[in-house]
Amino acid sequence: MINQRVIPARLEVLSYSKPNEIAEAIKDMTVRGAPAIGVAAAYGVALAGLRSEAGSRESLLADLDAAGQVLCSARPTAVNLRWAVERMLRFAGMVEGSIPTIQQALVDEAGRMAEEDVQTNLRISRNGASLIEDGDTIIHHCNTGALATVDWGTALGVLRMAFEQGKHIHVLVDETRPRLQGARLTAWELQQMGIPFDIISDNAAGYFLHRGEVQKVIFGADRVAANGDVANKVGSYMLALAAVDNQVPVYSTFPCSTVDLATPTGMDIEVEERPDEEVLQVEVYGVKVTPEGATARNPAFDITPARLISGYITDAGVIQQPFNKNYLLATGSHTEHGGQP
Amino acid sequence: MINQRVIPARLEVLSYSKPNEIAEAIKDMTVRGAPAIGVAAAYGVALAGLRSEAGSRESLLADLDAAGQVLCSARPTAVNLRWAVERMLRFAGMVEGSIPTIQQALVDEAGRMAEEDVQTNLRISRNGASLIEDGDTIIHHCNTGALATVDWGTALGVLRMAFEQGKHIHVLVDETRPRLQGARLTAWELQQMGIPFDIISDNAAGYFLHRGEVQKVIFGADRVAANGDVANKVGSYMLALAAVDNQVPVYSTFPCSTVDLATPTGMDIEVEERPDEEVLQVEVYGVKVTPEGATARNPAFDITPARLISGYITDAGVIQQPFNKNYLLATGSHTEHGGQP
Repeated sequence: MINQRVIPARLEVLSYSKPNEIAEAIKDMTVRGAPAIGVAAAYGVALAGLRSEAGSRESLLADLDAAGQVLCSARPTAVNLRWAVERMLRFAGMVEGSIPTIQQALVDEAGRMAEEDVQTNLRISRNGASLIEDGDTIIHHCNTGALATVDWGTALGVLRMAFEQGKHIHVLVDETRPRLQGARLTAWELQQMGIPFDIISDNAAGYFLHRGEVQKVIFGADRVAANGDVANKVGSYMLALAAVDNQVPVYSTFPCSTVDLATPTGMDIEVEERPDEEVLQVEVYGVKVTPEGATARNPAFDITPARLISGYITDAGVIQQPFNKNYLLATGSHTEHGGQP
Repeated sequence: MINQRVIPARLEVLSYSKPNEIAEAIKDMTVRGAPAIGVAAAYGVALAGLRSEAGSRESLLADLDAAGQVLCSARPTAVNLRWAVERMLRFAGMVEGSIPTIQQALVDEAGRMAEEDVQTNLRISRNGASLIEDGDTIIHHCNTGALATVDWGTALGVLRMAFEQGKHIHVLVDETRPRLQGARLTAWELQQMGIPFDIISDNAAGYFLHRGEVQKVIFGADRVAANGDVANKVGSYMLALAAVDNQVPVYSTFPCSTVDLATPTGMDIEVEERPDEEVLQVEVYGVKVTPEGATARNPAFDITPARLISGYITDAGVIQQPFNKNYLLATGSHTEHGGQP
């Protein structure tokens, strides 16, 4: 996988052979982005299968279960992680044949999930691009591009598709403190694609919205509750408030695997608080800014209530409010979506 | 003056002898904070007087005028700067006597303004402290402490006074991108005073407000329009939106010299856009985060509409809405306040 911690300074590709290493890479955000960590975890389960010394099918499934638990606990908020692990375990339970057959089937299934993710993102991007108009200036939060997925991206994929369709767009890139995924990753991806952009501090979004310089706000999702509340990178909520206060539409963009109908509302979503070092370790011209001994609090996500969201861009179409009803109508079935029992 | 660019790495006191140097120090934010730059500019006018080689009173006044223009243009948004320069020029126009007499009178007047600023801040702090309750958690944006003023501070002065009155408070310190005045200066000042705090990324304020962990939001002001709209450090608007969305009161805190009745609304306030380097130059563990060639936009302030503000903490008391009427009632007169013709 691409080491997202060192972009844009260098492009480094890492290889892993143990599921615990993948759990660690998810935890320390070497790989990040809800769809990307889902597929990384699927490969983690496949690796657990390959490394298992089990002599029986039952014992192999127990090894997979144990690895799945470690992977799921790496990050608590994004539901794709749990969804991917559960899909792999369910699949393992259904495969018949010898242990080597099951092992190979798990590798193949992880590969299918990776390929499906790309196709899902292309559908999302086509659905969303229809909302983007020529001349739009768009605020984007965090990173939701190829790096955050297997390829192509979700919210950033929408912008890429609109751009490839010939629409002139300008992106205001929220730098996305504390980990600066916008300044670090989204800016880098936009540069590769040739899409015009300016980085802004997250604080400045309200200024541009208030001045009427922005036509759309778009971000991803790490988990969507049944009522349409969205858990996404911290700052999404304040950005959505500022957009709505200025009548600018807010779009949350995600694959259906991000929807967790088992979670009734955003208040039921566990939000990860990460090490305070991520906030404190900020330097300007080589000098650390925060005083020695200072402490921080560092929630990784926040909840944007459904009332602030104009539309949900998914692989099943653009879903309007009320989310719950229209999501079920759009997807047609309860299978293959996250959070289903 | 204290060099605010190098805190907390070191405490450095700088001396200036030329008004242009002071204008430069205001521009590059060696000195910042609306009250502090006001008094710095007053000393700048006094220095222009001392350095003048004018042979006549008229020629001396012309020298002062020229220096005042350079000082006022250093930063366009904060009205205290213009207010202080205009007060010095008006004073110079009234002093009688020889050139050395006028020169000395200007130095004395700047000193009086410095002393008045401390007294004003003490009044503000006593007025505001009555609003703070034992056990409050308070989000504070930017820096409004002793560093931002001649001494004591405005919004941070309120918290200091409440703390010295024995109230147990906890401050969530908005780091305040891009220049990180919160993480850099406010954290440092709170540490000196022994007030408990955690630094948060500005993005995270909404999370804590939404969870009900915050009882008050407080920040300063760089200019207050006649209708009560507040220009303050960028991010104040989004913070106020998040507070109001969770029924948490928002207080803007400032001396009456920050009020500009000649500016009808916030939309009439010129907002300074600063060099994009301030956004782009951010490092983590010694590595620059933004890609080479990226550009940024960097507004220094935004406008918080009066409808989001629960009360204005001033040296003339805590002013409720509607601002215009109650401000005139509280101050009683049109003199000695910024922006008056």
